Amino acid sequence: MTNPTAAILVIGDEILSGRTRDSNMHFLAEELTRIGITLREARMVADIHSEIVDAVRTLSSKYTHVFTSGGIGPTHDDITADAVAEAMGAPISHRADAMALLQAHYDRSGLPFNEARQRMARIPDGATLIDNPVSTAPGFTIGNVHVMAGVPNIFQAMVASVLPNLTGGPPLLSQSLRVNRGEGEIAGPFGALASEFPELSMGSYPFIQNGAHGTNLVVRGTDPGQLDAAMVKLTRLFG
Amino acid sequence: MTNPTAAILVIGDEILSGRTRDSNMHFLAEELTRIGITLREARMVADIHSEIVDAVRTLSSKYTHVFTSGGIGPTHDDITADAVAEAMGAPISHRADAMALLQAHYDRSGLPFNEARQRMARIPDGATLIDNPVSTAPGFTIGNVHVMAGVPNIFQAMVASVLPNLTGGPPLLSQSLRVNRGEGEIAGPFGALASEFPELSMGSYPFIQNGAHGTNLVVRGTDPGQLDAAMVKLTRLFG
Repeated sequence: MTNPTAAILVIGDEILSGRTRDSNMHFLAEELTRIGITLREARMVADIHSEIVDAVRTLSSKYTHVFTSGGIGPTHDDITADAVAEAMGAPISHRADAMALLQAHYDRSGLPFNEARQRMARIPDGATLIDNPVSTAPGFTIGNVHVMAGVPNIFQAMVASVLPNLTGGPPLLSQSLRVNRGEGEIAGPFGALASEFPELSMGSYPFIQNGAHGTNLVVRGTDPGQLDAAMVKLTRLFG
Repeated sequence: MTNPTAAILVIGDEILSGRTRDSNMHFLAEELTRIGITLREARMVADIHSEIVDAVRTLSSKYTHVFTSGGIGPTHDDITADAVAEAMGAPISHRADAMALLQAHYDRSGLPFNEARQRMARIPDGATLIDNPVSTAPGFTIGNVHVMAGVPNIFQAMVASVLPNLTGGPPLLSQSLRVNRGEGEIAGPFGALASEFPELSMGSYPFIQNGAHGTNLVVRGTDPGQLDAAMVKLTRLFG
């Protein structure tokens, strides 16, 4: 597959402690699949500066795009912007454009634009702001790294403003067949079929329902003709 | 914190394509928190041999324990056991103890113990088997790496048989306070309080409800006395 690749880095202790269940990774996975960018890896790390720096460096050198989620608010545990700046070798400061956006927002709302809120204007040099229609404090893109908020509705709004600017490949299509047999029964011929179609990816996902074993067979690829041909053979084998 | 650390590696295309939403990471996070093992990182990678090998190597050298989920079934896309063996430098074969377990299972069920099913007996030399009360095919522990199935009820059963053998630290406790103010309003004094209690971890999680900003303040640590003292001060500040 020659589609562009991506990773997501979810930042925050609350996911790893089990207190909160991440939903941003799953949302982004679906959106990227739709526009033909292949999500190849997801990582979740704690609010630890060196861990974030290392992960951003590794992932940004490995994939076409990196999306981060979390850690760009006003509190002491919001350390993502500074860590990303370090990872990308960019200076960071309270940038004038972000300060102006936030100043106008707090002027309108009548709330004080205090020191904590000003932290949300810390944006690396050379980064492009990502619009936040929900609560103004912007995300940013630097190099191939897109830095977004962790609150799900803000994350989703930021994804919606970033994705139209990215070049995807043909969308990754998938078709599936539900079979009332266990994986061990279909594995041989299914594996043989997979090697007949090297450009498709075929996976099998077992389930148990009412005590009986079954398997969902999923075929993925970008060429609709190949996908249809594989499904015809698959249905003939197991349908 | 001196508690033992852990990472989870979730293996499988179906999570990254957005087709399936992972639940094993969240389940394990809660279980580890309860027994005082700190989950420090989660990774999700595709069914690609070299990716699995690299991730297992990195994580097993970095943390006390690594838990993997997925890719130990009978089909061609189940490549976890061989990848873990390579990462840990161990030979792998159809091991006699696992063959015997599976042979007995298929004898009882009357299903053929075919080549695909025999693949599930591929276990690295020196590994200890992990019991699978749901469908027999075992997981295994090699070094500090615990290799488990991806199907959630089997994953959970395997976790239940592995965790009692691990030494945890004092459980990670948490208390929280819900505040009807935005993060930007409480960030200054909250950050100051966090630096008063360097052994606790304090996080703030904003939410919007009925158009109003609010924040959940969460304090985590292993010392109940410190936790109570911090909560008294927190409630005095914002309660």
